[in-house]
Amino acid sequence: MRVAVVGATGYAGQQLVHWLDRHPHMRCAALVSEHEAGTLTERYFPGLDALPSRFLSLQELEGESLDLIFACQSPKQLTGAIGEWTGGGIRVVDLSADFRFADVTRYDAYYGPHPAPELLARAVTGYADDPDMQYRDALIVGNPGCYPTAFFTAVGPLVRAGLKPAGIMVDGKSGVSGAGRKPQTHLLMAEMAENVEAYSAPGQHRHTAEMEIVAGGPVVFQPHLMPMARGIFMTIYLPAPALGAQEATEIWQAFFKNSPFVTVVTQGMPRTGRVRGTNRVELSAREDVRTGTLVLYAAIDNLGKGAAGQAIQHANQWWGYPPALGLI
Amino acid sequence: MRVAVVGATGYAGQQLVHWLDRHPHMRCAALVSEHEAGTLTERYFPGLDALPSRFLSLQELEGESLDLIFACQSPKQLTGAIGEWTGGGIRVVDLSADFRFADVTRYDAYYGPHPAPELLARAVTGYADDPDMQYRDALIVGNPGCYPTAFFTAVGPLVRAGLKPAGIMVDGKSGVSGAGRKPQTHLLMAEMAENVEAYSAPGQHRHTAEMEIVAGGPVVFQPHLMPMARGIFMTIYLPAPALGAQEATEIWQAFFKNSPFVTVVTQGMPRTGRVRGTNRVELSAREDVRTGTLVLYAAIDNLGKGAAGQAIQHANQWWGYPPALGLI
Amino acid sequence: MRVAVVGATGYAGQQLVHWLDRHPHMRCAALVSEHEAGTLTERYFPGLDALPSRFLSLQELEGESLDLIFACQSPKQLTGAIGEWTGGGIRVVDLSADFRFADVTRYDAYYGPHPAPELLARAVTGYADDPDMQYRDALIVGNPGCYPTAFFTAVGPLVRAGLKPAGIMVDGKSGVSGAGRKPQTHLLMAEMAENVEAYSAPGQHRHTAEMEIVAGGPVVFQPHLMPMARGIFMTIYLPAPALGAQEATEIWQAFFKNSPFVTVVTQGMPRTGRVRGTNRVELSAREDVRTGTLVLYAAIDNLGKGAAGQAIQHANQWWGYPPALGLI
Amino acid sequence: MRVAVVGATGYAGQQLVHWLDRHPHMRCAALVSEHEAGTLTERYFPGLDALPSRFLSLQELEGESLDLIFACQSPKQLTGAIGEWTGGGIRVVDLSADFRFADVTRYDAYYGPHPAPELLARAVTGYADDPDMQYRDALIVGNPGCYPTAFFTAVGPLVRAGLKPAGIMVDGKSGVSGAGRKPQTHLLMAEMAENVEAYSAPGQHRHTAEMEIVAGGPVVFQPHLMPMARGIFMTIYLPAPALGAQEATEIWQAFFKNSPFVTVVTQGMPRTGRVRGTNRVELSAREDVRTGTLVLYAAIDNLGKGAAGQAIQHANQWWGYPPALGLI
Repeated sequence: MRVAVVGATGYAGQQLVHWLDRHPHMRCAALVSEHEAGTLTERYFPGLDALPSRFLSLQELEGESLDLIFACQSPKQLTGAIGEWTGGGIRVVDLSADFRFADVTRYDAYYGPHPAPELLARAVTGYADDPDMQYRDALIVGNPGCYPTAFFTAVGPLVRAGLKPAGIMVDGKSGVSGAGRKPQTHLLMAEMAENVEAYSAPGQHRHTAEMEIVAGGPVVFQPHLMPMARGIFMTIYLPAPALGAQEATEIWQAFFKNSPFVTVVTQGMPRTGRVRGTNRVELSAREDVRTGTLVLYAAIDNLGKGAAGQAIQHANQWWGYPPALGLI
Repeated sequence: MRVAVVGATGYAGQQLVHWLDRHPHMRCAALVSEHEAGTLTERYFPGLDALPSRFLSLQELEGESLDLIFACQSPKQLTGAIGEWTGGGIRVVDLSADFRFADVTRYDAYYGPHPAPELLARAVTGYADDPDMQYRDALIVGNPGCYPTAFFTAVGPLVRAGLKPAGIMVDGKSGVSGAGRKPQTHLLMAEMAENVEAYSAPGQHRHTAEMEIVAGGPVVFQPHLMPMARGIFMTIYLPAPALGAQEATEIWQAFFKNSPFVTVVTQGMPRTGRVRGTNRVELSAREDVRTGTLVLYAAIDNLGKGAAGQAIQHANQWWGYPPALGLI
Repeated sequence: MRVAVVGATGYAGQQLVHWLDRHPHMRCAALVSEHEAGTLTERYFPGLDALPSRFLSLQELEGESLDLIFACQSPKQLTGAIGEWTGGGIRVVDLSADFRFADVTRYDAYYGPHPAPELLARAVTGYADDPDMQYRDALIVGNPGCYPTAFFTAVGPLVRAGLKPAGIMVDGKSGVSGAGRKPQTHLLMAEMAENVEAYSAPGQHRHTAEMEIVAGGPVVFQPHLMPMARGIFMTIYLPAPALGAQEATEIWQAFFKNSPFVTVVTQGMPRTGRVRGTNRVELSAREDVRTGTLVLYAAIDNLGKGAAGQAIQHANQWWGYPPALGLI
Repeated sequence: MRVAVVGATGYAGQQLVHWLDRHPHMRCAALVSEHEAGTLTERYFPGLDALPSRFLSLQELEGESLDLIFACQSPKQLTGAIGEWTGGGIRVVDLSADFRFADVTRYDAYYGPHPAPELLARAVTGYADDPDMQYRDALIVGNPGCYPTAFFTAVGPLVRAGLKPAGIMVDGKSGVSGAGRKPQTHLLMAEMAENVEAYSAPGQHRHTAEMEIVAGGPVVFQPHLMPMARGIFMTIYLPAPALGAQEATEIWQAFFKNSPFVTVVTQGMPRTGRVRGTNRVELSAREDVRTGTLVLYAAIDNLGKGAAGQAIQHANQWWGYPPALGLI
């Protein structure tokens, strides 16, 4: 398979290139970076030897013979290009929010009017670890957001098992790479070392929409920045649920019994340090019996399972390869 | 005033010594460390010149003429000694949990049987920024826990204003110094760099008891370790409260109008990096209007306002000095 | 004294404001920030209550009645303004390199042509902990660079005692705040967490010139970025010196016997963590007897002694106040 | 191949297990941990599925049918066991210092009397990236130290090309995992965040002996602790060498032309962040033309190339597999 990564110098793009370099069936035929077009790729990827020598501009990508493009840009930046690529028969895994919503009104509410709603018919979306994930005859896979991925893994199986969560509170804790590679003062190490802070207001972060689809109802989501580069730890508070920690554990174990990437931690706790650089998820559940509250914990690498890892897993599954190819 | 710090090489003890060194009225007459008795104090405190030259053992403290002792040990370790000191007329600010509960049954539930309940009659407890704090004729001040201090500052004023919180969820995020200076594998930098994890189970951390006194009802409290040395960021979720973010802000501003240490942040967010090394608290409130949820944010330094800073502020107020003496 | 800080939102400027806020004789009469002119100062300095309410532009500073200006900008940005201020009788401590060289040719070699060499006659430069520092009738004090300050403290006293160092190698290790508060990709926490790297080439960093004046000869200086916000650790290799570690220690102790800020560490090692947030320097010396090499170690806070702390200490000494006023 | 890791819960041991888990020809048949004997291995290695279920004690290892043992303990702890294992025909890669010296007097000088000098006849030692590395009929490979590995990669090729370094100064900068997984106060994150310090005295660190063999003469080596978990950055100062940066670069490129793991960085600088979690080395050279000094830079992961990665590479090469098997 000839593969291109568009946005190859961003954090998700870089992680994609590293994993693709060890993938037995996918080869990086083109790496696109508008800012670094013409630069030697070895500046960003020393030690990887199967890469094209220079970054291309988006325009230079035209005419490349490709099977698959990983599109790693902000929403709306590549929507038109994805229309053209897929029109020409190239499949796309899109890491932006553009194809995460079958229902365009949810997209519009958080991102403004969708630039090409007619393309939604070519797309599927979903979580790579969901055993019900179907690719059908899609040309586009909308790769989920990082926080929603952690959330789905914890809450999705419980909802499928019949849980109707109410009053759900989600406390998200992310490393700073989640904010991308654009230079911003508040993300400097001189600002973030020894610093924790909340950002966005509860319910206003764009990923809230994806989580509410999973939960089937309102979710209060508050994200925070952690003094680290990579990783998401998510703490999910479920008041008065119909099930306990033991039952949640058993539902997870059944739901993910064929997934090589999900670990239900029964001794100790999920740790972001242990999933760093991987496509894995760690889950755990505990309850406060005094108040009847169930608390769920999920740890992922925001650039792994939360972005590049899930994108490759989707591609593997889409093409019928084993899910873990290139990812372990 | 002649002052002693018992437990002077622990993190709270060290911070106490640094602030006392610049206090105009308090002088470190004795520094006690069981592990370092006999060691030169300059090994721990280079650049401070008004300190006694060597650490004493607890036994060597006897016979010292003292006005005040800051007791910085784990619960039950110094209870007997505090009985003797106060019996001899020396006042004590105790940083352990031993004197944080007027009602001994709350203590017993989390810490086991109180070793000297008869001493509670000599003690008061409370938060140094509480304008209603009274020292009366006490001989002991029970200095609050770090998490409860952040919690009180955010929630206490609202409860005093009539709020009856229900279903309150508290997500605590602490730097690793909160676990003390004892070597433990999971607190090594090699384990905690790039790592976030929850610890304890919801409602089982000992500080829950102090928070529930403030809230007047059950609190679901889940603490987490952050990859940093110092600081607590607390996110408090209040479902369906009777007030909004603007009202909370106004209540805080009125409640703390005479406090030099509490800042209600109205632009941007509280940040642990900005309160590091200080006795300050930063507060903020936001609401999710879609769900009617109020979220409160508090940032403190766990060793500052959460331990040593509040202890000195209590001592200042107890003796009638300005609250900020030595602390700015 | 009415004082202004120009560049008050940069890292050195912010640290200046924090110390000035507790200075008994200096009052922040004006805070200048071109980018934040008009913004409330409490956004940057919550909890400080004696500040002017808004940042001024440079132009708005005209007409303010001032005794002293701390100028915190890059070289050449404020040279003209400093000419005007001092022409009007206002004294200036300049934290840029513009007034660090009595001999303008040294400046020119590293910074290009000096924009106002005629102003050098109004200036003195030197290290605040140097007992020979003289302010005479100067209107400008050129505050030294951060690395040279660490270097002077270690090497200066030995040279004064007669050491003629040859073949000196200086390995500088700095937290990222040394690069300033401008957003740059390579300084993002997502880049610098878990990362150490050298920058600049040996002998080409601008601070080399200041160190060579101290050493009286060539210095090979190689700076590095550390994964932390603040602090400089400097390791200085002196091959075949005429003195040993014990003699160096004694020379330092004599040289700094009246300095409240320099600690010669004889047990253990200097640590940047221990000088963070202070105006202190920690020094130590060890030798490799097998090869006849003396190694010197110095730790400072690059924003403390390496910038804002030394600037205030200079101002204290210039006005005849005790050196430590406001700094402890 | 049936492989055992002895010391599997230490940092090098854990990294070994992760890489072995993806190795096509080596299977972890036994994991030994004295402290965790009997514990489920999934507690340490969630997500790895081809591991034995429980840790064994050293005694329980007897009778296992094995081809290769990775011995990850401190010097002298396993020397006797290695004698027995190799006596029974099992090969050993030893990560301690016990088999790093053909000349036992060098070992004795830094580690005290060698516990089993007669075993040296069964051993070879050397660097996995050295094209001259020979395994002959050895039963033991002595895996080099982390600092010496960085040093060899930079200096070894130059010495082979005829350089006779004199007056060499080596400034080593290591993440804290280099000190092992034993709990020690000074390695707590609460101590090491925002802290840089030197440790050991110049020339006294045990790794000096290995470096001096590479250099063919005295080396002044000073190690430092960095505020990070993993990585070594080494800065090597060569006064008055017979070659320049360009020549060093060309020698490296020729020497490592067949090595998949060594990158000579010609634009930008080596970065520990970029080699984290890999078996790679990044090298660079710059010179100070004013003083005729050559400075070499090397970055490795102390647990990768500096320990577990090199150990597996040695095993691959010893068995005739491609060097990178399981390591990319």
